[in-house]
Amino acid sequence: MLPRFHAPHLAEADPSVTLDAEQSHHLARVLRLSEGDPVRVFDGRGGEWAGTVVTGDRRAATIGHLHPVTPLAEPPVRLTLLAAVLRGGAMDTLVHDATMTGVARLVPVLSARVSVGRRDEALRAAHARWQRVALAATRQCGRAVLPSIADPVPLGEALGREAAGVRLWLAEPTLSAGGLRRVDALAARARAEGAVLAIGPEGGWTEAEVAQARDAGFVPWSLGPLVLRAEHVPLAAMSVLRYAWD
Amino acid sequence: MLPRFHAPHLAEADPSVTLDAEQSHHLARVLRLSEGDPVRVFDGRGGEWAGTVVTGDRRAATIGHLHPVTPLAEPPVRLTLLAAVLRGGAMDTLVHDATMTGVARLVPVLSARVSVGRRDEALRAAHARWQRVALAATRQCGRAVLPSIADPVPLGEALGREAAGVRLWLAEPTLSAGGLRRVDALAARARAEGAVLAIGPEGGWTEAEVAQARDAGFVPWSLGPLVLRAEHVPLAAMSVLRYAWD
Repeated sequence: MLPRFHAPHLAEADPSVTLDAEQSHHLARVLRLSEGDPVRVFDGRGGEWAGTVVTGDRRAATIGHLHPVTPLAEPPVRLTLLAAVLRGGAMDTLVHDATMTGVARLVPVLSARVSVGRRDEALRAAHARWQRVALAATRQCGRAVLPSIADPVPLGEALGREAAGVRLWLAEPTLSAGGLRRVDALAARARAEGAVLAIGPEGGWTEAEVAQARDAGFVPWSLGPLVLRAEHVPLAAMSVLRYAWD
Repeated sequence: MLPRFHAPHLAEADPSVTLDAEQSHHLARVLRLSEGDPVRVFDGRGGEWAGTVVTGDRRAATIGHLHPVTPLAEPPVRLTLLAAVLRGGAMDTLVHDATMTGVARLVPVLSARVSVGRRDEALRAAHARWQRVALAATRQCGRAVLPSIADPVPLGEALGREAAGVRLWLAEPTLSAGGLRRVDALAARARAEGAVLAIGPEGGWTEAEVAQARDAGFVPWSLGPLVLRAEHVPLAAMSVLRYAWD
């Protein structure tokens, strides 16, 4: 894959674009690209262009000779992930994997057993870091769509706000074996109206939270008797949903 | 989950067992367990016992009052993974995830694009490390079966040796869209006769290797247009197989 850069303000007919300072540094100093090297540019909203480096300036690199190319196909199902906030590194892994596996929107959720500080300042810093992780993952994986990462909100708020045809709740298999749904059967509705998947924290959701989700129309779903670390669950769950619905 | 220890020589009627030095140190110094604390012991072949610490000796801890308990169910399909050897940390991640997701046997494969040294000494050291990683993952995830990790072998040898009803080859989706199989349809045969899944290195298999696999009866399968890092592919692929076949 060619090196890829994010140019959020690029318009379809623009012949060239200047990258921000961080990406210019990456282009010139880390990748050591210079005039004439082929690269890709994407706008984060589904547009992708081929071009070549015009100036490898480490503060303001310019890409020219742009022409639109066919972007990597997005999943046929628009997927929103409601994910309980995990501790530092684990949440970064979650954001990375969610981006790689095609999530359109990620809503970090403050659950009762959330294991991070709730101070506004700490959450703002974390939110900025998650956006950087999502951008880096988007550049690496070839998507032309940068997933949006919402501000962290309490579970109740997240449950009511996200509209979708299919609302799945990743449940502990032991808790609710009776009411579990197979996702295969939900493919048509998910394709037509989108889907929301809620994934819990290390310690699982509380009973009150599970009740709240059921009231909001979420149905329990399970990966089966796999014991995975919380930060690995999104990769496993998204892979199953993509395979079942693509 | 209670702390779990591996006692490979434990027999069903044994009333107590002494742990090896490494696990004794872990019990006494890291987990700081002492007399009377409840723990679990497993033999790595499917047997699991409940017991309590009798002596928390840091060189030879003893677990007593043992009685057999029902172990975590293994997957209904016996799964063998042929995995191209990845660089150090990435291969450790692969071994960890393969263990967590229920692989019964892992065969590290030396492929043409393998990115590790082939010196006997280095491979022996790596093999010993993979076994430690598999044991640690087994203790964490609750399985009573420790997956076996074969000595690394060239691809041709691995392809011919592993008997199974279903032989899958994880292919680049772009390479072989025509002949791809859906795994859902293979469930009955996989349950009856087991399955082998082959996963390639960072750079993919060479054309000669793909031809060799087809000759050995492997059918191409794909996770769809996901771009994942090589070490994340087993977690994604195994999650899909477990969901389709469990």
